[in-house]
Amino acid sequence: MGNSLGPVALVGAGGVASALGEAFAQAGIGIASVYSRTREHAELLAGRFGAEAFWGNGFGVNQPAALTVVASTDTAIVDLLGRVAEGGIVVHTSGSTSLPTLPAVPTGVFYPLQTFTLGRRISLEGVPIFIEGSTRKVEQILSDYARAIGARPIPASSSKRRHLHLMGVVGCNFVNALLGACEQIAQCGELDPHVITPLLHETIQKWLDIGAHAAQTGPAKRRDEFTLMRHRVLLSEELPDLIPLYETLSELIVRAHAEARDEA
Amino acid sequence: MGNSLGPVALVGAGGVASALGEAFAQAGIGIASVYSRTREHAELLAGRFGAEAFWGNGFGVNQPAALTVVASTDTAIVDLLGRVAEGGIVVHTSGSTSLPTLPAVPTGVFYPLQTFTLGRRISLEGVPIFIEGSTRKVEQILSDYARAIGARPIPASSSKRRHLHLMGVVGCNFVNALLGACEQIAQCGELDPHVITPLLHETIQKWLDIGAHAAQTGPAKRRDEFTLMRHRVLLSEELPDLIPLYETLSELIVRAHAEARDEA
Repeated sequence: MGNSLGPVALVGAGGVASALGEAFAQAGIGIASVYSRTREHAELLAGRFGAEAFWGNGFGVNQPAALTVVASTDTAIVDLLGRVAEGGIVVHTSGSTSLPTLPAVPTGVFYPLQTFTLGRRISLEGVPIFIEGSTRKVEQILSDYARAIGARPIPASSSKRRHLHLMGVVGCNFVNALLGACEQIAQCGELDPHVITPLLHETIQKWLDIGAHAAQTGPAKRRDEFTLMRHRVLLSEELPDLIPLYETLSELIVRAHAEARDEA
Repeated sequence: MGNSLGPVALVGAGGVASALGEAFAQAGIGIASVYSRTREHAELLAGRFGAEAFWGNGFGVNQPAALTVVASTDTAIVDLLGRVAEGGIVVHTSGSTSLPTLPAVPTGVFYPLQTFTLGRRISLEGVPIFIEGSTRKVEQILSDYARAIGARPIPASSSKRRHLHLMGVVGCNFVNALLGACEQIAQCGELDPHVITPLLHETIQKWLDIGAHAAQTGPAKRRDEFTLMRHRVLLSEELPDLIPLYETLSELIVRAHAEARDEA
């Protein structure tokens, strides 16, 4: 599949750079080069696209591209942005870093709201990519790149992106931590943790359909002190490390439903 | 569709009783009667199946069935079980209540690990139903009822069911509370909360594929203090009620990944 969008330089070789690189390549967009701090990572990812590899201090000399994607850790972004060659649009992929400002270079943000783990193949189909650009034209081009890989471009200011990043942490990192807690409980009960899968899917679907307040169920919502106490006993006997989690989340639910109960 | 399984009496007319009743009826299993504390609820649900309705103190006189399902609140179960007519198997659907013991009546537990909200239609296809019976024969029959509605019967002792119930709370009630927190953050940022949906689905799929420890990402895992601090600032400015949630979950992730970091 051909594509009129110009080639991309990837700065970074981790989960985000790999996933975006794969998606661009599949959409027929050329990957011109891959940079990583380490030679091994740069060559590994570049090899998948037949792209040039750069590493260490070899970056910033001569790899202009239509779009340079800085997909590194937040702390490395500033350093790397300062070394980007002129010649195209330069973006980073961070949810919590402001729009970059570079002299005489059009810049932007290309933030996919998704969780990336190196080595895991992932589709970007339907994934929201939050777009910000130093000009309206840059935003249009970034939206074209997002649409080319099947993603859903959404304009978002740096301020909104702060909220998005926090939502991502709560909706992914914290949900995953809860799933880790489920694994611990399952292990104590000698159960398969995956038995909760249909429950998880219905929890999300119900939330989409009716919102969290109407979807809430369980002993904390009902203020069923007897059941809450039985859970506390189980946790203190077998999994005391999970008690703060249990108390904090139960309290959050109790508070969210205190008014409804007082009204009833 | 006909079915050789005998008719069911429903004791309760809430989310669980409605969902099980619908599923039984669709599988060709007769619904003989519906009991609720209030006449309105009993007649409403019984009307959907052409079943007899009982309410208030009218229960326990003359409604024998092959299977009597007590799907009431945990606190009402004991009272209702004591009033059940002889003639078939009597089960409750509670995750946190022991196997009932009734003189001369075969008893069991029929606990679907799912979240039910009255008025919401839900498929029980593939949903695990945890089965316990006063005899092996009872367990076989309960498994037949579960399979007839497309669910997945799994034998589980009362002790294991305590763990299952707690897993259900963490994987459903607590996940829903996190989704409620996402709604609050989205509202502050004037964003659509549903943009996190692809992220949620990938979070669950990644957990299924590689487990919570390998799937974990985010600032707490990386101990990225700068990002954690920016989130804390945002929360203290706009959503201070969510600070305990943020601290507790971040701490849980930090602890789960402390060893990996120390090893690295």
